[in-house]
Amino acid sequence: MKGKAQSNSESRRNALPLRRDENFPEWYQHVVRAANLAEFGAVRGCMTIKPNGYAIWEVMQSTLDAMIKASGHRNAYFPLFIPKSYLEREAEHVDGFAKECAVVTHGKLVRSDGGKLIAAAPLEEQLIVRPTSETIIGEAFSRWIQSHRDLPLLINQWANVVRMEMRPRLFLRTVEFLWQEGHTAHSSAEEAREETLRMLELYRVFAEEHMCVPVTCGLKTTRERFPGALDTYAIEAMMQDGKALQMGTSHFLGQNFAKACSIKYADSDGAEKFAWTTSWGVSTRLIGGLIMAHGDDDGLVLPPPVAPVQIAILPMVRGDGDGAPIKWAETLKIRLEETRLKSGASLRVAVDDRQLRGGEKFWQKVREGIAIIVEVGARELDDGTVTFTLRGSRKVTIGIDKFVASAANILDDYGEELFNRQLRLRLEKTVRVSGFDEMRDFFAAGNGFVEAHFCGDRALEERICAELSIGTRCVPLGTIDDVGPCIADPSRVGPLTIWAKAY
Amino acid sequence: MKGKAQSNSESRRNALPLRRDENFPEWYQHVVRAANLAEFGAVRGCMTIKPNGYAIWEVMQSTLDAMIKASGHRNAYFPLFIPKSYLEREAEHVDGFAKECAVVTHGKLVRSDGGKLIAAAPLEEQLIVRPTSETIIGEAFSRWIQSHRDLPLLINQWANVVRMEMRPRLFLRTVEFLWQEGHTAHSSAEEAREETLRMLELYRVFAEEHMCVPVTCGLKTTRERFPGALDTYAIEAMMQDGKALQMGTSHFLGQNFAKACSIKYADSDGAEKFAWTTSWGVSTRLIGGLIMAHGDDDGLVLPPPVAPVQIAILPMVRGDGDGAPIKWAETLKIRLEETRLKSGASLRVAVDDRQLRGGEKFWQKVREGIAIIVEVGARELDDGTVTFTLRGSRKVTIGIDKFVASAANILDDYGEELFNRQLRLRLEKTVRVSGFDEMRDFFAAGNGFVEAHFCGDRALEERICAELSIGTRCVPLGTIDDVGPCIADPSRVGPLTIWAKAY
Repeated sequence: MKGKAQSNSESRRNALPLRRDENFPEWYQHVVRAANLAEFGAVRGCMTIKPNGYAIWEVMQSTLDAMIKASGHRNAYFPLFIPKSYLEREAEHVDGFAKECAVVTHGKLVRSDGGKLIAAAPLEEQLIVRPTSETIIGEAFSRWIQSHRDLPLLINQWANVVRMEMRPRLFLRTVEFLWQEGHTAHSSAEEAREETLRMLELYRVFAEEHMCVPVTCGLKTTRERFPGALDTYAIEAMMQDGKALQMGTSHFLGQNFAKACSIKYADSDGAEKFAWTTSWGVSTRLIGGLIMAHGDDDGLVLPPPVAPVQIAILPMVRGDGDGAPIKWAETLKIRLEETRLKSGASLRVAVDDRQLRGGEKFWQKVREGIAIIVEVGARELDDGTVTFTLRGSRKVTIGIDKFVASAANILDDYGEELFNRQLRLRLEKTVRVSGFDEMRDFFAAGNGFVEAHFCGDRALEERICAELSIGTRCVPLGTIDDVGPCIADPSRVGPLTIWAKAY
Repeated sequence: MKGKAQSNSESRRNALPLRRDENFPEWYQHVVRAANLAEFGAVRGCMTIKPNGYAIWEVMQSTLDAMIKASGHRNAYFPLFIPKSYLEREAEHVDGFAKECAVVTHGKLVRSDGGKLIAAAPLEEQLIVRPTSETIIGEAFSRWIQSHRDLPLLINQWANVVRMEMRPRLFLRTVEFLWQEGHTAHSSAEEAREETLRMLELYRVFAEEHMCVPVTCGLKTTRERFPGALDTYAIEAMMQDGKALQMGTSHFLGQNFAKACSIKYADSDGAEKFAWTTSWGVSTRLIGGLIMAHGDDDGLVLPPPVAPVQIAILPMVRGDGDGAPIKWAETLKIRLEETRLKSGASLRVAVDDRQLRGGEKFWQKVREGIAIIVEVGARELDDGTVTFTLRGSRKVTIGIDKFVASAANILDDYGEELFNRQLRLRLEKTVRVSGFDEMRDFFAAGNGFVEAHFCGDRALEERICAELSIGTRCVPLGTIDDVGPCIADPSRVGPLTIWAKAY
């Protein structure tokens, strides 16, 4: 623990200058910076995802992509620019996004007499940089779908989208973000609803089994649903500070966009009918969720299934050019890569052979969230042992064969423990209340999830949320039949609804 | 060959309504449409890449990504929007791109009194939708690089870029396209030059070994180089009509962008120095090259290494619900997937079990460019044979074990033959000339590559190119020492240079 003692005073024993319980939002910024994940650049709210952050996104993306393809969807790519008139086609939709649209008005730059660059060549029709793609994909669907034989049409897109956020936060709210957006069309409402819930369930599996973050699947209230949707479902997670994060949404769009975009088909009986559509998406926001769910006072904590590197091997690198520890490390890497996690994935192992002081390298890997750090010194070369540190545990030395044989299990158990820790947190910080005062007192004292029956009245929801600075998160699908007197208007009844402060 | 006979008259024996030799540009459009690769949508020049086209891009992307990573580069993601002032930093650069910049001027839409949507919230600084990212990545590099220990910095980005093309063509020139752009910084000119050539070589390997398209590696003339670069290298291919396609470029940027973006580092001797940078990229344009290099009068022809599906199995699907042919097809698929190509990749096999007429399914696969099409009827179920058609060959029937054992070899040989066919074409259509009249006569008669010594004078090049409607493609690296009297000004000497009409 030499590095620790060197880089921190006795009273501050963590790798970050700030603990979670001191200032959670500031701690978040420190984690991002210390793990070299991302930064804001010159344009307000536009994030650069640095190699360490992008590597996490690549693992998430490849896993999700395989899941989305396995459920029958094909990838395609639609234009970045949406004609302004397209957005107007669905009234609720445009009103929902108008406030945050980046508008391209010119197609050229020219030099003014003074040598300054000025926008020229005004466009005939102004273009919106996509905030989401329902309207432009709807236009394509209206041409691609002619007959009932063209249905269901199951499409996914990986893309960047732009929403002019006024209060940007790295990963959580950025002007530009990366996401996948699924768009499907069906011949019946029932089938479209099934698809909506199937993708919600896919997101749950990804969040819980790959990100090790327990989530609640639920239905959004009218006030919180996607502009233009009939029903919006979401997976909601609790962060370590008790606030909620919406990690993914799945929308049943009914025939709203089919009518707005004219997505019609000839049914087997010859009749012309409008299709039923869905859309669903998750974004780089997931990385923000990862940080806030698992991070600790030493920095990022990566669950093994989405970690670009699960095991980092740090050979002692000496100035005298003795490469024996590096060779030893490379051999260990190859042996480890032959073993597999419970999920079937191969172990992801990296050797860091830079010539840095041992402590410096070790603490860098800690801040980067590596689950297992193996340190290779002279002793290991001699006696056939491995000295490693599992995040959150003490350093141990065991025989090399034993380590190779058990590494996958250690990582599997560690991921499970991360999940369980989050589950316990959520249980501890969730209360069920039956009176409004009780709810007010709860949020006055701290954060967490409040479960309360709610009638769903939009104006009432708005009033409560403004008064307590909270929001409804969802009506959990698991308790959707649990109906009782509304917390704010006992003359009406409604389902159990989760309330929380949210990111 | 029943399907063929059914769908085409005796005099027109191809799956497309037009042959290459009748009208190559129109034939190209037919191939794209018949294989369902892409289309233009509502915004002029903005392409939608349909699932069949995107699947090809995904195979190319994953192969290239692995190659780029294996050569030491890490992926990151930089903002879509570039402040207008950034572009101004490198004079030649901004002048090169100003004419095709999409400019974001507003951050909001509001409803006018008449209910129309109008752009509002003018931005303090207007934003350019990236046409390329040297300046914005340069800004990040100026912060990431402090010391010689931070070099080399080897970064790659997969992204969309926008250039307001006036004469769009699907894949070849589109307003928005997908690409990778590598950006690296080094401590010496020599190392940056090595990187530039290393990536050019990587592109050559990808083009020749994966796309089966022979390319010429060469240096661009001053007139043709990237705005802001000291040297631009390219891989140039010949299409079947004798025109050239630039398939990838790699730029040695010297210290131009380092000075423009202030990319400085403290050297080991303590002195502050500017870095040396490179950039290099390939785009969805490669798919256009694939089509024009290999396509035939029946449609797309996919070289096996980049084909999403190399073998399509078409079981006869009967209305009576007898699933035996489908089961047989699935079993064959599993057996095939266990074998590997020379490259080590597993075979990519798909079963198409839609209930269509055999001929219809067969010809769809032909138009989609599938290398091997297996048709499964009653006979195959009974006698343990496989009936298949290798693109361009006759239908044959062989024993199932023999087919499984030889499928990978057949595909490897087929890819090699595609490459050799292209190589022969290029040899046939390349001439070496020593006089200007000879060159004029060549292009008056048709298309191809002309090799001629050229002094490199920019004004002279401009005059020749305007007169003959051609361009210089590159000075091939293989013959860079072959210097002789200039074709247009024999008083000067210059290296052998390739001239051609180009896409």
